[in-house]
Amino acid sequence: MTDLTPDPAALVTELADRLCNWDRWARDDGVGALNLITEAKRIEASACIRSGATFSLGFELRPDLPQPPGSGRLNPVHVMTELPSDAPPSSDGPVSADDMLTMAVHAATHWDALSHFFHRGRMYGGISAAEVTTQGAARNDIVPAARRLVTRGVLADVARHRGVEVLAPGEGIGGDELREVLEAQGVEVREGDALLVRTGLLGTTKVSGRWSEFAQCGPNLPNTPGVAVDALPLLHELGVCAIACDNWAVEQLAGGPPSFPVHELSLVYMGMVLGENFELDALAEACAGDRRYDFFFAGAPLPLRGGVGGPVNPIAVR
Amino acid sequence: MTDLTPDPAALVTELADRLCNWDRWARDDGVGALNLITEAKRIEASACIRSGATFSLGFELRPDLPQPPGSGRLNPVHVMTELPSDAPPSSDGPVSADDMLTMAVHAATHWDALSHFFHRGRMYGGISAAEVTTQGAARNDIVPAARRLVTRGVLADVARHRGVEVLAPGEGIGGDELREVLEAQGVEVREGDALLVRTGLLGTTKVSGRWSEFAQCGPNLPNTPGVAVDALPLLHELGVCAIACDNWAVEQLAGGPPSFPVHELSLVYMGMVLGENFELDALAEACAGDRRYDFFFAGAPLPLRGGVGGPVNPIAVR
Amino acid sequence: MTDLTPDPAALVTELADRLCNWDRWARDDGVGALNLITEAKRIEASACIRSGATFSLGFELRPDLPQPPGSGRLNPVHVMTELPSDAPPSSDGPVSADDMLTMAVHAATHWDALSHFFHRGRMYGGISAAEVTTQGAARNDIVPAARRLVTRGVLADVARHRGVEVLAPGEGIGGDELREVLEAQGVEVREGDALLVRTGLLGTTKVSGRWSEFAQCGPNLPNTPGVAVDALPLLHELGVCAIACDNWAVEQLAGGPPSFPVHELSLVYMGMVLGENFELDALAEACAGDRRYDFFFAGAPLPLRGGVGGPVNPIAVR
Amino acid sequence: MTDLTPDPAALVTELADRLCNWDRWARDDGVGALNLITEAKRIEASACIRSGATFSLGFELRPDLPQPPGSGRLNPVHVMTELPSDAPPSSDGPVSADDMLTMAVHAATHWDALSHFFHRGRMYGGISAAEVTTQGAARNDIVPAARRLVTRGVLADVARHRGVEVLAPGEGIGGDELREVLEAQGVEVREGDALLVRTGLLGTTKVSGRWSEFAQCGPNLPNTPGVAVDALPLLHELGVCAIACDNWAVEQLAGGPPSFPVHELSLVYMGMVLGENFELDALAEACAGDRRYDFFFAGAPLPLRGGVGGPVNPIAVR
Repeated sequence: MTDLTPDPAALVTELADRLCNWDRWARDDGVGALNLITEAKRIEASACIRSGATFSLGFELRPDLPQPPGSGRLNPVHVMTELPSDAPPSSDGPVSADDMLTMAVHAATHWDALSHFFHRGRMYGGISAAEVTTQGAARNDIVPAARRLVTRGVLADVARHRGVEVLAPGEGIGGDELREVLEAQGVEVREGDALLVRTGLLGTTKVSGRWSEFAQCGPNLPNTPGVAVDALPLLHELGVCAIACDNWAVEQLAGGPPSFPVHELSLVYMGMVLGENFELDALAEACAGDRRYDFFFAGAPLPLRGGVGGPVNPIAVR
Repeated sequence: MTDLTPDPAALVTELADRLCNWDRWARDDGVGALNLITEAKRIEASACIRSGATFSLGFELRPDLPQPPGSGRLNPVHVMTELPSDAPPSSDGPVSADDMLTMAVHAATHWDALSHFFHRGRMYGGISAAEVTTQGAARNDIVPAARRLVTRGVLADVARHRGVEVLAPGEGIGGDELREVLEAQGVEVREGDALLVRTGLLGTTKVSGRWSEFAQCGPNLPNTPGVAVDALPLLHELGVCAIACDNWAVEQLAGGPPSFPVHELSLVYMGMVLGENFELDALAEACAGDRRYDFFFAGAPLPLRGGVGGPVNPIAVR
Repeated sequence: MTDLTPDPAALVTELADRLCNWDRWARDDGVGALNLITEAKRIEASACIRSGATFSLGFELRPDLPQPPGSGRLNPVHVMTELPSDAPPSSDGPVSADDMLTMAVHAATHWDALSHFFHRGRMYGGISAAEVTTQGAARNDIVPAARRLVTRGVLADVARHRGVEVLAPGEGIGGDELREVLEAQGVEVREGDALLVRTGLLGTTKVSGRWSEFAQCGPNLPNTPGVAVDALPLLHELGVCAIACDNWAVEQLAGGPPSFPVHELSLVYMGMVLGENFELDALAEACAGDRRYDFFFAGAPLPLRGGVGGPVNPIAVR
Repeated sequence: MTDLTPDPAALVTELADRLCNWDRWARDDGVGALNLITEAKRIEASACIRSGATFSLGFELRPDLPQPPGSGRLNPVHVMTELPSDAPPSSDGPVSADDMLTMAVHAATHWDALSHFFHRGRMYGGISAAEVTTQGAARNDIVPAARRLVTRGVLADVARHRGVEVLAPGEGIGGDELREVLEAQGVEVREGDALLVRTGLLGTTKVSGRWSEFAQCGPNLPNTPGVAVDALPLLHELGVCAIACDNWAVEQLAGGPPSFPVHELSLVYMGMVLGENFELDALAEACAGDRRYDFFFAGAPLPLRGGVGGPVNPIAVR
């Protein structure tokens, strides 16, 4: 367990250079750490498919959750634009139904694109924040992730390792604990893997209904467990290509004014996309069942042109 | 090549009983032919991963295509709800961007759910059309497909087999031709496979820009090549669990008043979801390159509660 | 004060014939009681303009109110589609901003169209409910009101008459009380007038912030004061063309399962549109100041084709 | 008729100082030239009501017009969120219909707010363009116009004066011609009036269907008749508080790259809102009929918080 650093801004400054991947690949390819996924990596991933059991990690798109009422992001609004009742009962023609969807891109299960966060006026690759306008992200949008994010996945089930249903509010998962969890699980994280970290929060919130403690946009953050800044050097060292969590922001949040050091370091400097609101409980149950924590991971989001994020129904196949 | 039957309504009536799967599985499970995907099937599918090359078959979400202007379905409208320019230049707090998406569910690459079409007041399983209201599909929505649609995929590259860039407007692909293509390609379709059929239409339209010939909602259908009604008995016999195409409606359309016999038979009676606007050219090129037409197929759409369809970024891994 | 009738359905049945205007004007003109507004009426209305003071009765369009979070109707979502920050600082071209609006039609200040409610399968004029489909109201939409709703307005300030800030939850305003208020105010309601009834609810809710007691869509109604069923015969007798209120549904609501006898009688049988969420406090203050309760009323909503309601910024000029 | 000036930017620079109203009223009141509407003005306006005939000048909200397909601004999309067909036929409860609207604020008949245009980084009152962000216009939004825009209106029927159905593409209406039209019509424009200028374009386009010549967002402007820059000094001198037109942008446009000198001068320097897509033909017919060109004008838009424009159904009463 890791306490929140008193000065996250200083931490970001300190770690930015060390973790920076801007010159590791072409600065303007928009791919970032997903460059670590090679074709060989996917062959490796395919070897994880042993039972054929499939886990869909996407939170159901519904109008009331997971953002609590009034929290700022619009949950999916689903409306019908055609219905069978439109047709007169005697109609001989075809009868169909059609629908329309309006949603905040970051409302349900999604990836944050590399254009979702900025630091000192720049986003990943040193590209100016001015490239993101009302017309969307002219650079670093979500499309490259949509074309590429299939790899080996590894679950770090921190809640189970700690023997709790859910981590306490505001608790962080640091590098040491992450290493310990992976070791205890007997799984090795290798270059190009996507890492899924389980806090237990989404599952327990579905039971408790305390969504206002799960997510909040606005002047104050929720107080939720998540990945701590000091886990990032480990992820960098291991070559993780993407990280996702069963919470609202991947990183630990401790209420109070917004502060997102993990977003800044991961998206802006490491070029590593963040997956949020992932449903991990069923997958975790299966992993614990046969003590196998790796799987084939098909996590490619919708290819939303200009998107600073992308909705996704991530799939794990074991 | 198969001509359009003069009376599609009669064809539907004739074939409905023969192809009906309502009593093959639980009538109310909402799963339909996806019941054919077993865990063993996915192990089989994983064996198709040999090069690790991945193909994202999703049409980029953009505001102008693929529905031509004025054709009825709203292409994806992407707007920004937060921008880095919102923050004063001197701001010390985190700087991020957020976005929102409004789209017809059936606008870009998507699956039609079993609640998308009706026949004689019923949808798949004999369930009343009245179960689909403004609140969405209370039964047969897209969620079961979202939780399950991962299997072996097979491409039938009809355009390449015919030696053309694209099939002629209105041409149908019948059972005999499909069998012939598969045989010529040296690939066997087995129970539980998803079948992707390539007409060449989406790719050539991207070059020609003639989108008004690709898609149209309204009093008159477009005139496009696609799957003919008489292919359905073969698909039924082979145990195909889902079919997708690089056109707007899977089935062949010949202009004139709306008539969708393949939709009626496939969705209502066979319980087989239809995938539309799939981008198949790059995948086809690779298949032709090493003459291997099967692949691991992760085609699970977004789990849209009540959706009569679901947006998807389908992934083929070879 | 009037108690809620134990059986609203019986009340509707009892009063429907007596109040029915279907054969008073053309059944299919979609105009209903607005037929009572003549050109002479508007001359009469213009005589009410004596000080030139203008009152805009429209609730500000904002994303958080007046529907409380989670109550079902989408408050106005306002997004920017173009911003000055899009332009490079050195740009010589024109610099502008553009925006987009998504809202439930009945979210803020609006009129209910004659197609908003149905009784026994019919709407105003005896027209089948089947005329309202996903394509909107083919009959009785809001457009006729948009073309016509300018007349003399009269305020009945019930809260002030009772000497309270706001009527108690669930209280009804019956015919006798309404007559008494008008008499005490020294104002005569004449044929073709629009009647605005003040309960004090919107104003006090803006202060208290108890919006969940103001409006609710869902299994249970809010418990709010409003117009009682037994006021309708008086309105019919007086020839009121439209009625509006500073509450969520015009009529008194008493919690519990939905029941809307005033909507059924007014919209379906009398053909009288209902105005909801009107801001009446400033107007009421002015009326009380010089004890003049009539005014020129420009209440024409947006001409929304097919709309079963219409957003409006109603204007009273004294 | 006035030719387009070869250098609109120079014209703007030249006229900005002369027409600037920033120090005429409080710079930060957001009201601009609407300060010219006094209560006495509205008494004067009420004297124009002589026949009681009312003209609704709002273009019907519909999904296909007036923006031509693909032109950038989203026409009103109207969807139903509740329908009578949702209720089982035997249902005893209330049966209603509800709807939702999505539209570009500037799509149909609307006012441009003072925050719609910028010049040299500033908007009306010298306020920084940075006050308009994804959260809307923090200053100079449309709300003050919504609370105030009721005054005397005057029509200048330029098309009729010229004896044409519609002015030719790209033609400008200058100060001299405007003065001449008003004189010939025998109407005096006085301080605080709203001026409606008729080119005939909207009416003839409704007949011709040539909407792509009426409106275009994008790299090239349409080629439409409208108000010329050199009319602005006259409007300033006369004390016009708002100007509206039956075209897409009030001002004359001559195709080619975007250039909006009238927007820049009127909105940024004069603080005068612009009304677009006004339907003026029926009003013009009536004015010509009795040669009376002034009327009571209720033109208050929806009070959209943060709106850089506001939808409106403007009403003229004669």
